[in-house]
Parts: sequence; C-alpha cells; structure tokens
Amino acid sequence: MSNNTKITPQAENFAQWYQDVITAADLAENSSVRGCMVIKPYGYAIWENIRKELDSQFQKQGVENAYFPLLIPEKFLQKEAEHIKGFSPELAVVTYGGGKELTEPLVIRPTSETIIYDAFSRWIHSYRDLPLRINQWANVVRWEMRPRLFLRTTEFLWQEGHTAHATKREARQYALKILKKVYKPFAEKHLAMAVIDGQKTESEKFAGALSTYSIETLMRDGKFLQSGTSHDLSDHFAKAFNVRYLSEDGTQQYVYNTSWGVSTRLIGGLVMSHGDDKGIVLPPKIAPHKIVIVPIANSAPSDVTDAAKKMYRHLKKYNPIFDDRLEVRPGEKFYEWEKKGVPLRLELGPKDLANNKVVLVRRDTGEKSIVANDDVKKSVENMLKDIQNNLLLRSQKLLETKARRVDTWDEFVREINAGNYVLAHWSGDAAIERQIKEETKATIRCIPFKAEKEKGLCIKSGKPSRQRVVFGRAY
Amino acid sequence: MSNNTKITPQAENFAQWYQDVITAADLAENSSVRGCMVIKPYGYAIWENIRKELDSQFQKQGVENAYFPLLIPEKFLQKEAEHIKGFSPELAVVTYGGGKELTEPLVIRPTSETIIYDAFSRWIHSYRDLPLRINQWANVVRWEMRPRLFLRTTEFLWQEGHTAHATKREARQYALKILKKVYKPFAEKHLAMAVIDGQKTESEKFAGALSTYSIETLMRDGKFLQSGTSHDLSDHFAKAFNVRYLSEDGTQQYVYNTSWGVSTRLIGGLVMSHGDDKGIVLPPKIAPHKIVIVPIANSAPSDVTDAAKKMYRHLKKYNPIFDDRLEVRPGEKFYEWEKKGVPLRLELGPKDLANNKVVLVRRDTGEKSIVANDDVKKSVENMLKDIQNNLLLRSQKLLETKARRVDTWDEFVREINAGNYVLAHWSGDAAIERQIKEETKATIRCIPFKAEKEKGLCIKSGKPSRQRVVFGRAY
Repeated sequence: MSNNTKITPQAENFAQWYQDVITAADLAENSSVRGCMVIKPYGYAIWENIRKELDSQFQKQGVENAYFPLLIPEKFLQKEAEHIKGFSPELAVVTYGGGKELTEPLVIRPTSETIIYDAFSRWIHSYRDLPLRINQWANVVRWEMRPRLFLRTTEFLWQEGHTAHATKREARQYALKILKKVYKPFAEKHLAMAVIDGQKTESEKFAGALSTYSIETLMRDGKFLQSGTSHDLSDHFAKAFNVRYLSEDGTQQYVYNTSWGVSTRLIGGLVMSHGDDKGIVLPPKIAPHKIVIVPIANSAPSDVTDAAKKMYRHLKKYNPIFDDRLEVRPGEKFYEWEKKGVPLRLELGPKDLANNKVVLVRRDTGEKSIVANDDVKKSVENMLKDIQNNLLLRSQKLLETKARRVDTWDEFVREINAGNYVLAHWSGDAAIERQIKEETKATIRCIPFKAEKEKGLCIKSGKPSRQRVVFGRAY
Repeated sequence: MSNNTKITPQAENFAQWYQDVITAADLAENSSVRGCMVIKPYGYAIWENIRKELDSQFQKQGVENAYFPLLIPEKFLQKEAEHIKGFSPELAVVTYGGGKELTEPLVIRPTSETIIYDAFSRWIHSYRDLPLRINQWANVVRWEMRPRLFLRTTEFLWQEGHTAHATKREARQYALKILKKVYKPFAEKHLAMAVIDGQKTESEKFAGALSTYSIETLMRDGKFLQSGTSHDLSDHFAKAFNVRYLSEDGTQQYVYNTSWGVSTRLIGGLVMSHGDDKGIVLPPKIAPHKIVIVPIANSAPSDVTDAAKKMYRHLKKYNPIFDDRLEVRPGEKFYEWEKKGVPLRLELGPKDLANNKVVLVRRDTGEKSIVANDDVKKSVENMLKDIQNNLLLRSQKLLETKARRVDTWDEFVREINAGNYVLAHWSGDAAIERQIKEETKATIRCIPFKAEKEKGLCIKSGKPSRQRVVFGRAY
C-alpha cells in the first residue's frame, strides 16, 4: 500500500496540505458514506496510544469504564430543553428496526448524557454511592455538513466521562480537575501541544451545561482547535432524569453531574500542530513506531543487514520498523518514513559498520548525528526526549508568537486577518460576541484561567470589561 | 451499589438463574431501549480482558486494527444477494440525518463485510498488497425480538476480522487458522471452556459465505452456545465489490476474503459455563481481580488490617480487591465476592496473624487452605493455576457427560429432551435438518472436525451418511 501523494506546501494552501499529509501518511480516508471516515491502521494505532494513556490517567482519578447503548429514545433528549435545542440539527434518526416502522424513533447518540443519567437514576440510591465516576470509549454521530477528516466527521470516536457528585461545588471542582490534571498535561506532555485553558462563553458552552471548560490548542496556520472539553452540568440533567440520593441527614437530594471528552479530532490536532512540508511529525510518546531502522545494503543477507537486525532487537522497546526492502532505494525509504512522521531514523551502511557507528536522523529538525555503536540505546533515548521537548517548545513558541494584545478595533481586524490571535477586552455581551464573529470569523475561544484581572473597555462596544479574553479563528 | 439479588437455584430454573447471577454480579442490565444492554463496570472489565488477550493473539497472526463507518448505504448490502437476504430482517435503518430525510437510507452495520470490502477495493492494487489482514473492535446492531443480556442483544460489542488473499486455498486456510489457532485455544486456555470445532451446515452458515467454521461450547444446562465463527467468503464479496489485484503474471484477479468474529456473547458463555448457585465463577486468566483480601477485624487501623494491607501490596500483580469495610460483616463480604466470581479469597484474622498464617478459599470448589505467610505468593500462584485447570476440566467433563451417540430416532428425541446432545448420522439433506429442528428444537451445531469417518444412515431419513454430526439445542 505504498503511496505517492505529492504534498502541497503548507504556506501555499494549508487546507490542501492537511489533506495531502493525511493521505501521504496513510492515516485515514473518506468512505463511501459522506462525512464518515475510515481510520486506517496507522491512524488507528495513534488513536490506540492516545486511548491507552488517557485510560490509565482516568483510572488514577477513580474512573471506571462501562458501555451504554448507541440508540437513545428521542424523548430522552427532549427532557433537557437546552440539550435538545443544541443537538437537534445534528441527529441521525432510526425510524425502522427489524423490518418495521418504529412507534418511537431512536437517535444515534450524539453524546450520552441522557442515556447515562437514566442509568444513574437506577444506580444511585444513597450518598454512599457517590461520587460515581464512569467513562466510555465509543463512537458518536453528529450530522456534519462540511466534513473534514478527523476535524469534523459525522461519526467520530471519543471517550466521554460522566460523574455524579453530592454537591455542586464538588462537581465543579471535578470538571476542572479533569481539564487541568488530565487533559492539559496529556496534551502538553504526550501530544506536545501547548494549551490555553479556560472557560467557554455562554454562547459557546455545551448544550445543557452550567459551564464548559476547554483546552484550546493553536495550529500552525494560526487557527485554534478546541481539543478537549469538560462540563459542569450542575443539577440540570439530574432534575431531568430524576437522579437523586438519600443524603447523610436523611433527605432526598439531586446529584450534580460532570461530563468531559476528547475525540479522534486530536489526531487532526497533532497533524496541524507539528506537521511540515515533508509530512506529519509525531511526538515520540504517541508515535506507534519511535524509530525506523534502514540498512543501506544492496543485497540480503549481508553483514550490514545482520548488524541492523541486531540493532533492531536492541531497540525493541521503541517498537522500531525494520525496513530492509531491496526493491526500494534508501532515499525513497527516508522520504516514506518522513511522511509518516517517525521521530527518529537509524541508518547503517557498510562504512558505518566498519567504523562501529550508526547514523541517527531526527524527524523534527532533520539533524544528523553519528553515534558509536555502544552508545546507540542511550543516544536514541536522549534524542527521543529531545524531540518530545522540542515539539512542545515549538508549539509554545507559536502560541507566544501569534498572540496580540490589542486595544482598538482596527488592530483587532488587522491581526485576525493576518493569521494571529487576539487578547482583547470584552464586556460579556453575547450580541457583541456574535457581531464580532460575523464580521471577522473570530470567536471567543475561552476566558482564560491564567489572565491578570485588568479593567478595560470592550474592543467592539466600549463597554467596561474586567479581563481580556482569547479571540481567534478556529476549526 | 451493593445489591441483594436472591439467586434462583440453577436446577430450578436455569433461565432465571442466569438473569439473577448477572444482576447479582453487577455485570450488565437492560437499558430503557428494548434489546440494548448497559454493560456495567465489572462486566466491561471482563470484556476488556478478553479484548486485550485476543488483540495480542491477532497481532501474532499479522493482523492490524482499523476503524470503518458505523453507517452503511443500504445498496451496499444488496450487492451480495445472500448477504442482504440473511440480514435484511435484522436491520436498523436511518432515514433522517441533520434534520432532513435522507435520499438514500443508511443501515447501522449488522456486520461490516460490505463497507470494508468497498475500502479494500481502493486499497488493493497488486499481489504485493496481499494478504491484507484487518480487524476492528466495534459495536454492531441486529434487531432482536427476544433479547437476553449478552446472549442476544440488539446492540453488541465484538471484533470483526477481515482479510484478503491471493488464492482461494490461502483464504480457506486462514479462516481455519483463526478458528483453530486463535479462537479455540483462547476459549480453552483463557475462558476455560471446552470446545467442539467444526463446519456449519449450509443452512447455518453466514449469509454470503462459502463455508462457516465455528467453535461451539456447552452450557451447564446442556445447550450449546456458538462462541466464535470464522467464514471462508471465497470471492463472493470480491466480485460484488470488485476487489481485484494485479497478479505476478500480470493478470487482474479477484481476491478471496475471510471474516471472523467473537462478541460480548462470550461473557454470557462464561456465566453459563462456570456459574453455580452462589453466582458467577471467573477463570483466573480473565477475572478483573484474581483475589480478594478480607481482614477479619472489628476496628481500623489494626494489626490485622495492617498485615492484610501488606499482603495486598505483596499480591499486587493479581489486581487484588482489599475489602476492609467496617460496616459490612465478613460473612456478607464473602457472599458478595462469591457472587462476583472472584477466583480466590484470602482471609486474615487475629489468630491467623498470631500464627503467621492466612486462609485461602477457592471459589470453584469452596476448598479452604491454611498457608504460612511466607508461602502465600507461591500458594496463590499455584491455586490460580489449579482453578484455571479445574474449570477447564469440569467443562470438558460436561462435554463428555452430555454426549450421546444415538442411532434411532426415539433415542434421539429422548436424549435431546433429557438435556443431552447427540452425535448422529445425517445425510446432508437440508429439508431433514429443518424437520428435525421443528420437531425437537435441536439444530446441527456443526460437522465436527474431529470425527471418525463412519458410514451410517441418517437418523431421521435413513439416507446414507458418511459421518456423525453434532445435534443439540442452542442459545
């Protein structure tokens, strides 16, 4: 399944570049069903790594996995007024089952608050059953008019965590904890993506939530990607689904819920955070193969191939690829694995063998090092760490470089149009927020947690404001 | 979430017993959507263990994971005539999406041959692309009129493997390999379930297959559970979806496909293979927790609790439960963990502590052993092995005990009604097979691989037959 996709330069056409590098790396493709993608083995292996790491993080937060039905009675969604209003335009509806028209239509879950809290209403009886912390790894369907691989697909894979707590305060803190202690460090340490964390505005929050918190990451074209969200649902769904518990003082109380999720969209984020004109660049911690080993030999078996094979066994823990194909020239191999973003390449030719050396080439910088045989394992380990750090540093630098503190509307428009993002004052008026979006396509990505309290005047309306918010274009 | 379900004795009402033990062990429950179950954390943990083990087995067979769309155009299913005939009564059909009636209905995958081979037709070009070996872990929907938890649910979780090969022979061998080298040993060694493997008759084979192979396991009530199937699809789907490759001699050839799957139904199989009147019994290799540690103490902290905690850390690799609840009496704890089928219980009381001993109790036999502190780890290791072996031996014994070689129709009916299964001659006539099913509810589970060639006369029609087949009632 080799593939010779030519990659459009990033600077020339970012959207086409994105499409090209995904094809070139063999991550995913459009299926015959509009809006639904096929995640190919290499793309899926990245998702499995994301899943594995997050799963162990959730466990540390006391979360257990379970599985809830794909199909939800339409009337369940209607129980929470904001929820159905938000999701109604995106639903896929099953009207026939087992050869008969259904008396009651079922929707394919766009998210599972309703069906899960229906279960919680059976599971929770007393304060001893709280907190209840559940997660599911599942597919969801949200009808998508302008699909793009990973970023916007009608079906996508995700995890959705759902918890129930005895108090409003505890729920809010848990929603924040998942964002700050799981999603943010995961994005930074594993995906090497710099993050702005904060709260969504009323117009951008989850349909049915009291508050939504998010991590926002910046793509190389200056647009944001909302990469993970955590919702404080307060008692909104508990009231709709009658989820109550007997408190220690013997009274019936509603629980307070949180829900939180990340999806296969993160893979799109990885691509647009780190990729370059040669293809995708994978952070070592999430790369299916951390190194590719290429013996430079014209025949096999050969001394070179044997030595390279030994190296392969030596480096087993990095799940290396051993590319000893004879019908493909070394240059083509390099090109192929660069497209796939393998963090490190080890080359071994006859001269290297004679000198007891190998060549190591970094994907992120292209830097070449010649390393003594005995030091290979240590060098590989160090370089992988360096690559991981360097990718995060680059991402942090991008986030700094593209930031503009702006105090006039003219500047605002100019900076947004120049592909930057803006820290500006906003008074909290949703109508102004909408107007800004209509005029510039910039939305408030979040009200950042880390912002000095600073009095000012709204960039558009001139009304008094207490802090700057993050405006930017987004996927 | 404690629960006080009373368990109906197995001998009194097997179906009710099954329902009761699932509730008592907190494995799963019916949801508000008829036919769709909620898999609760303990049940899901078993599925995760099944998944993890099978996944590593598939990898050894050169299989890669990927993910394909949930929604399939209805016309795709119609491309293979037998396939649509078989699945049409079970389909869930989406007719609305994004607020509009769809011009073309989409079905929720009941299985994914069609959408996957559609992708294969884009992925496969030359003989170099073969064999192609793909697996997906996914949910599927088959409308179910008589739902039962795990055994028959409208939605279930499964894996479906799909491969493409250059020759008919290679495909057939691969289908057999998955059955004999993966499914059968997995069922025996991990699930401790004895297996009859063989070929399905024409009437019982997969809709669209040339041949279906299956592993059949015997439940404690004498009924079979089809526990895994592997299909030789020949070129049936390759022709329907135009999956062709350029062969080494330069001609265009159709590929040959296999598909194979096991599902959450296996959990129902585990329950009905090993469970007893106290609850479920889990084979150690698949149990989420292999041991529960119960300090017998009236207060905490105490010397006993401290010593038990030490034991807990010492036995960490068995993912032990540490049950030091003070508000629950030891007897109740024993009862609770027996219901949940935890293979081994470790009790530690003040007397044991004084004597440097612990008590170990096996879930399968109820046998109690007193073990010196220093030997605990070794004893636990050995007992878990013993339990695993014993469960398989019991399952093998059941398979032998319930077998009847039968040569007259009267005997056949008597043995089937007595809850046994029958090895009898059958000439291959589908009409007779149907007639037997109508009269006795017994179906041909398989034409077993391991059967002496033996000439005889069909048990019902008297027509000549070349080997005995396995007749039995089944889930």
